[in-house]
Amino acid sequence: MRILVTNDDGIYARGLWTLVGALKEVSEVVVVAPDREQSAVGSSVTLHQPLRAREITPPVKGVKSYCVEGTPADCVILALRNLNDSEIDLVLSGINEGANLGDDVLISGTVGAALQGHLNGIPSVALSVASLEDVHFDAAARLAVVLVRKIGAEALPKDIFLNVNLPNLPLDQIRGMEITQLGRRSYSDEIKEGHDGKRKYYWIVRGKPEWQPKEGTDIWALLKDKISITPLHSDLTSQQALSPLKELSPTILHDLFIP
Amino acid sequence: MRILVTNDDGIYARGLWTLVGALKEVSEVVVVAPDREQSAVGSSVTLHQPLRAREITPPVKGVKSYCVEGTPADCVILALRNLNDSEIDLVLSGINEGANLGDDVLISGTVGAALQGHLNGIPSVALSVASLEDVHFDAAARLAVVLVRKIGAEALPKDIFLNVNLPNLPLDQIRGMEITQLGRRSYSDEIKEGHDGKRKYYWIVRGKPEWQPKEGTDIWALLKDKISITPLHSDLTSQQALSPLKELSPTILHDLFIP
Amino acid sequence: MRILVTNDDGIYARGLWTLVGALKEVSEVVVVAPDREQSAVGSSVTLHQPLRAREITPPVKGVKSYCVEGTPADCVILALRNLNDSEIDLVLSGINEGANLGDDVLISGTVGAALQGHLNGIPSVALSVASLEDVHFDAAARLAVVLVRKIGAEALPKDIFLNVNLPNLPLDQIRGMEITQLGRRSYSDEIKEGHDGKRKYYWIVRGKPEWQPKEGTDIWALLKDKISITPLHSDLTSQQALSPLKELSPTILHDLFIP
Amino acid sequence: MRILVTNDDGIYARGLWTLVGALKEVSEVVVVAPDREQSAVGSSVTLHQPLRAREITPPVKGVKSYCVEGTPADCVILALRNLNDSEIDLVLSGINEGANLGDDVLISGTVGAALQGHLNGIPSVALSVASLEDVHFDAAARLAVVLVRKIGAEALPKDIFLNVNLPNLPLDQIRGMEITQLGRRSYSDEIKEGHDGKRKYYWIVRGKPEWQPKEGTDIWALLKDKISITPLHSDLTSQQALSPLKELSPTILHDLFIP
Repeated sequence: MRILVTNDDGIYARGLWTLVGALKEVSEVVVVAPDREQSAVGSSVTLHQPLRAREITPPVKGVKSYCVEGTPADCVILALRNLNDSEIDLVLSGINEGANLGDDVLISGTVGAALQGHLNGIPSVALSVASLEDVHFDAAARLAVVLVRKIGAEALPKDIFLNVNLPNLPLDQIRGMEITQLGRRSYSDEIKEGHDGKRKYYWIVRGKPEWQPKEGTDIWALLKDKISITPLHSDLTSQQALSPLKELSPTILHDLFIP
Repeated sequence: MRILVTNDDGIYARGLWTLVGALKEVSEVVVVAPDREQSAVGSSVTLHQPLRAREITPPVKGVKSYCVEGTPADCVILALRNLNDSEIDLVLSGINEGANLGDDVLISGTVGAALQGHLNGIPSVALSVASLEDVHFDAAARLAVVLVRKIGAEALPKDIFLNVNLPNLPLDQIRGMEITQLGRRSYSDEIKEGHDGKRKYYWIVRGKPEWQPKEGTDIWALLKDKISITPLHSDLTSQQALSPLKELSPTILHDLFIP
Repeated sequence: MRILVTNDDGIYARGLWTLVGALKEVSEVVVVAPDREQSAVGSSVTLHQPLRAREITPPVKGVKSYCVEGTPADCVILALRNLNDSEIDLVLSGINEGANLGDDVLISGTVGAALQGHLNGIPSVALSVASLEDVHFDAAARLAVVLVRKIGAEALPKDIFLNVNLPNLPLDQIRGMEITQLGRRSYSDEIKEGHDGKRKYYWIVRGKPEWQPKEGTDIWALLKDKISITPLHSDLTSQQALSPLKELSPTILHDLFIP
Repeated sequence: MRILVTNDDGIYARGLWTLVGALKEVSEVVVVAPDREQSAVGSSVTLHQPLRAREITPPVKGVKSYCVEGTPADCVILALRNLNDSEIDLVLSGINEGANLGDDVLISGTVGAALQGHLNGIPSVALSVASLEDVHFDAAARLAVVLVRKIGAEALPKDIFLNVNLPNLPLDQIRGMEITQLGRRSYSDEIKEGHDGKRKYYWIVRGKPEWQPKEGTDIWALLKDKISITPLHSDLTSQQALSPLKELSPTILHDLFIP
């Protein structure tokens, strides 16, 4: 088995190498990750500019490792096509410092990398720990190894990828695991205004999320000190809205064609 | 009613101003759009750098218009908080040159802007025409006006946003409309390799998509010269995968805690 | 005569179009300028990335105008080779908001564009007005016309380009002109430190320059409400230091070859 | 003595660490260099955006080392003010892969870093080897040590900084040293045109320089397999042009004030 490890915190992030160290015991590992932090770039792909990659001396010996001047999704694309000759069996993105929950997964670079693996037909997992400081990576690394074995044994459902979040706790203080849905939050981004001497500027600052801790959601699991695993797909279609829209369809068509 | 118009082709794109010209007849319009083309940036938000905005002289008179040195999602965020004092009732993103279909909506800046409007609780629509050349914008602009009226009349379902694609045809050659699901495509991105004199580079080039024209999908509608309207939500949760994952959950937990 | 006008404040800056309006009366004018503000980029050239250009609708009618997603020097290079078929006789960069004096010319994008014109063998002038607010562009525009006539008449010395700074005054309050040398300033840049939630950042903020108002320098002229014209070349060689260094040369060689 | 080492090839370049390894034997060394290659950015300073720095694990043990997401000049500014508490006695920029000669020093990031050191009152040296492939760094590193000793002994003239270029040869094949002036070259940049599917692009490609190998210039020294040391200052004033311009000054003034 050959695992591609990437992230959005940048190739020198401690979370990535903790993960690589653990995975290396059970699998071949290739690392292709951004050379700079790439938070909030979501699933974006660089189509307008060429990309450069550079092989690095990895902190964990014997692991072929490249950094790319691009997004996490760029890293996955280059890893699958150019920077690695052999087939990739699994994409692991993380271990991210900070949770990736609910609607925020749509702008998460960590999840964006896993999504890109999934779109290329490869089992993919995004791994995050819910803290920006004093992050406990060990439980997440251990969970990664367990998931790798399940995926290797083809025990996991196809056609999805996984978004995994852990509470920031040592393994023995984690109180279990929940298979969850993405939660909802209220957005409260603030925009700092300033002036650079010549022009006004605006700086988007993520506010503290105000989560609705509804039972069965990812945030609900974390608040109970449990691991959250959410199965994701790439399909944003709202199934519930199809019927009501179909009923409206004739009147829309009518208004469109008949002035 | 006050409509925010944005796009990912950049504020000087013809599609945007065709849309503004049509909407202005039925509503107040504010434009906040990127100063440069921002294709494939998806829903990414600029958190690491400050943003600058500039009021421009609009090609359509009397429309307050700003460009932002940022992504389409940045534009929506600044428009809702800083560049506009009054409440926005609707976000319209487009008219994009080129279709935004299937899995590709996840990296589309056009859809990313509509998603950001939706996350802020505002009815939002992404509008695209399926051609990069000789684009017919008129039918799309007219459809936008029809949809604005439906949304104004609260006829559309809540909790979703709309992804609208039109065939590149004059209105009288369009053969109808379908309420669709996102389709699937096979990816065939190519990566051009080159050398800049000092270093090798890689350039991701989107391949021609190979669509699976399954009945009921957006691509299927377009292939029949019909308009496709797909209701989208922000929830990537795979409902079908919840049960099988829950069955697996105890063995994962077991392997995690018991060495 | 055909004049290329560019700047570093960006193609929509008022100073550029005031200049174009004045020049158009006496010459053919082509505009190629950055699409965004590009202060402090100096003479830098974009070699790592491709550049995009876009023809714009100019505020001054009948002037072929392009903006480039690049630096002022990039604009000059593209203008001379690709965006314009006819020969350019003169490059005018400005009218910049804010003086470009002394050592600062080495990081000025306004001067960097004129330097690039000069390196390509074309008479070139950088034009700046010494204020960031309520800028009087009229005297500078009028001076540009006068200089264009001198250059057209081949009255100006070859092998140099000009750095012109005006006090921020209406023409009738300007007290004359000096041909000057570049002055010296003490640097007092401040670095604002901040934190973006995930990482510390540093922001370089230009301090108020503390100039040494030595007689004969550009800053000395401005302080007397006079226009400063400084002849520049592209040669940073210190002629005075050649002899003392040559005396040292044998001992350096000795130490290098004999351990 | 404490030396700041930087470059424009990026902090992981071999030339930088060969230099650091040699300097470490004779001085304390601090490294602050760009995280990415920054060729052709010249002396540009990032004023519009905040900068991030990251301490790295250096390939040469015991050397405090930071990379900055910015230009070489940014690195020098941050090193002198924020990333290092103790006084810097010397700035060394390099060892660059590729010569930095003649007019090209004005767009060289290697020279731009040395210039920034010089503007801050610190003796500064730019070091380059004239090849992009199979670069011999040893002679340059050894020369750096020799120069450091001269500068420490205050044997070098003040008010200048040094631009040093070496032929790409082992030390014993180098045929001496010349104290030189900057040479002249003919520019022959090519611009590759292409299309990204949506838009045309232009890519500036440096042509092979056609040097005028005039006696006494840097390129003349290199062509004889000698080391070139050019004393530089920050003053672009053309002394020769001052008199002829002063003669013209009254007619310019006349034309300006009298219509």
